[in-house]
Amino acid sequence: MAGAHTEQEMLNQVRKIVPPLLPKFHKGQLGRVLVVGGSEDYTGAPYFAATASALVGADMSHILCTGSAAPVIKSYSPNLMVHPYLHDENNKSQLSSKIAPLLERMHVVLIGPGLGRDDDVLNQVSQIIELCAERNLPLVVDADGLFLIQKQPSLISNYHKHRAILTPNVVEFGRLLKSTGIENDDTVSAAKALAQKLGCAILVKGESDTITDGVQVLNGSEQGSNRRVSGQGDTLSGSLATFVAWTEAYKSKLWDAEPVDEDLLLLAGLGASSVTRRASKLAYERHGRAMVTTDVNTLVGESFAQLFEKS
Amino acid sequence: MAGAHTEQEMLNQVRKIVPPLLPKFHKGQLGRVLVVGGSEDYTGAPYFAATASALVGADMSHILCTGSAAPVIKSYSPNLMVHPYLHDENNKSQLSSKIAPLLERMHVVLIGPGLGRDDDVLNQVSQIIELCAERNLPLVVDADGLFLIQKQPSLISNYHKHRAILTPNVVEFGRLLKSTGIENDDTVSAAKALAQKLGCAILVKGESDTITDGVQVLNGSEQGSNRRVSGQGDTLSGSLATFVAWTEAYKSKLWDAEPVDEDLLLLAGLGASSVTRRASKLAYERHGRAMVTTDVNTLVGESFAQLFEKS
Repeated sequence: MAGAHTEQEMLNQVRKIVPPLLPKFHKGQLGRVLVVGGSEDYTGAPYFAATASALVGADMSHILCTGSAAPVIKSYSPNLMVHPYLHDENNKSQLSSKIAPLLERMHVVLIGPGLGRDDDVLNQVSQIIELCAERNLPLVVDADGLFLIQKQPSLISNYHKHRAILTPNVVEFGRLLKSTGIENDDTVSAAKALAQKLGCAILVKGESDTITDGVQVLNGSEQGSNRRVSGQGDTLSGSLATFVAWTEAYKSKLWDAEPVDEDLLLLAGLGASSVTRRASKLAYERHGRAMVTTDVNTLVGESFAQLFEKS
Repeated sequence: MAGAHTEQEMLNQVRKIVPPLLPKFHKGQLGRVLVVGGSEDYTGAPYFAATASALVGADMSHILCTGSAAPVIKSYSPNLMVHPYLHDENNKSQLSSKIAPLLERMHVVLIGPGLGRDDDVLNQVSQIIELCAERNLPLVVDADGLFLIQKQPSLISNYHKHRAILTPNVVEFGRLLKSTGIENDDTVSAAKALAQKLGCAILVKGESDTITDGVQVLNGSEQGSNRRVSGQGDTLSGSLATFVAWTEAYKSKLWDAEPVDEDLLLLAGLGASSVTRRASKLAYERHGRAMVTTDVNTLVGESFAQLFEKS
């Protein structure tokens, strides 16, 4: 139980799922991440998520978005691989021809950043979640991905048990509770009930972050900042995607890792929570009230190194 | 033979193919490079390759890509010349009207970075290789260009002898061996056999790089980093394109050069291997696990200066 560990001991647990950089590894082994998001209205969110995944240390960061969003996201950075396969007025969905083969190469799929709420797009994303289920891929769900879950909770309750983690903010959390009929004003108890009901892990963002699989509860209380810029959630979900990819590598014994005492998905959540909160603190120290999401996002690498790299 | 030389002696050999910057030279003489690549899915790869070619010292770096990729690649940098002449749904191929005249001005053609695997595009690239053969242009082949060679090894085995160099990573190397029926678990022996079979040079990327023309073998063992970000291969192939262009200038006695003891194409390979590995080491020193391809790519100039410029 979390209560039995100090904060420092918990970060030591997270450190055990951070892979060493060994000469024998080849490109891709330390994380191939797919962010599903990016639409007519939103192009920054998937960029921040995918960039955070790269700065935490994923080898390859991909984005799957609509045709109109792709050129813009691509132009933000040559470091991301952006695939315009989601249907919008500019292109047809390419679910079996292109999306399924793309999923085949991934270690984790993050659904939601900048997805928008277009019915056609959300229908495709429901189908993508089914394709992920066929491949038993771990899922991270955030933002408009949570809007989809709120409308169709069965997408997660029918998913493989403990293979998905949802990352709602307070408002999204309230909607998820309502749509699943959970009435409970205590965040920790409500989060546990929701995790049990959906058979997944939940990371509720707040003054401190609550991370639970319905039984264990970890508390993400790394110091952040009080400046609430939009897009910090994307930095968190993207960071989380890499940590989740690493839990897969850990389980497959890619390196000679030490045993951990806690659930791997919850440790991934705590890692991402800590990295994002620390990055936000560093950004506020440097930019004050003028801090923008890019400032937080750019500091993910430095934050990660402070928290998790052996000095 | 490589074994007879120390690493430093080999770098001294490479130094001899690095042209001096003489007042009498005019623009273009020290390298006109064409990167053939850039598609719906991939725009970063050709950008990294072309930028690396420029940072090593090519006078002019061009990209030939599909219509949809061109505006994005152009937006990364005004320093590159980007030609949208490859056929995709947005435009028709312009093989004789535009591509052939472009080839006429080039010293070297790099085929593959971000090319994708669209059949129409790969068919055009087969035709481009034939146009290069008519002009006896040296070729560098990487990434999806290697996928094409794997399907049609005759594109290289029928090319001018020792005028092409392939730069596979471990996975691509395995596929090339399979498609050419070579069974050999020892990288050096297998690379020699493949080079002999195809009549070209091979640079196999790995913990150290193996560079061979089927007879001689050079070992690229400059210290790199263990962080495997995607796009480092593009930095290598782009750097290599410039070194290959310089071997042409060397042979044409553009300057009063000292004789070298080794095959020029292999020295070009060793130069590019060393530059890329050193750049990766420098990027890791500065950015740690958060290093991304841009960080490696940006340091190509500094890496080159440390290795090859007379102080």
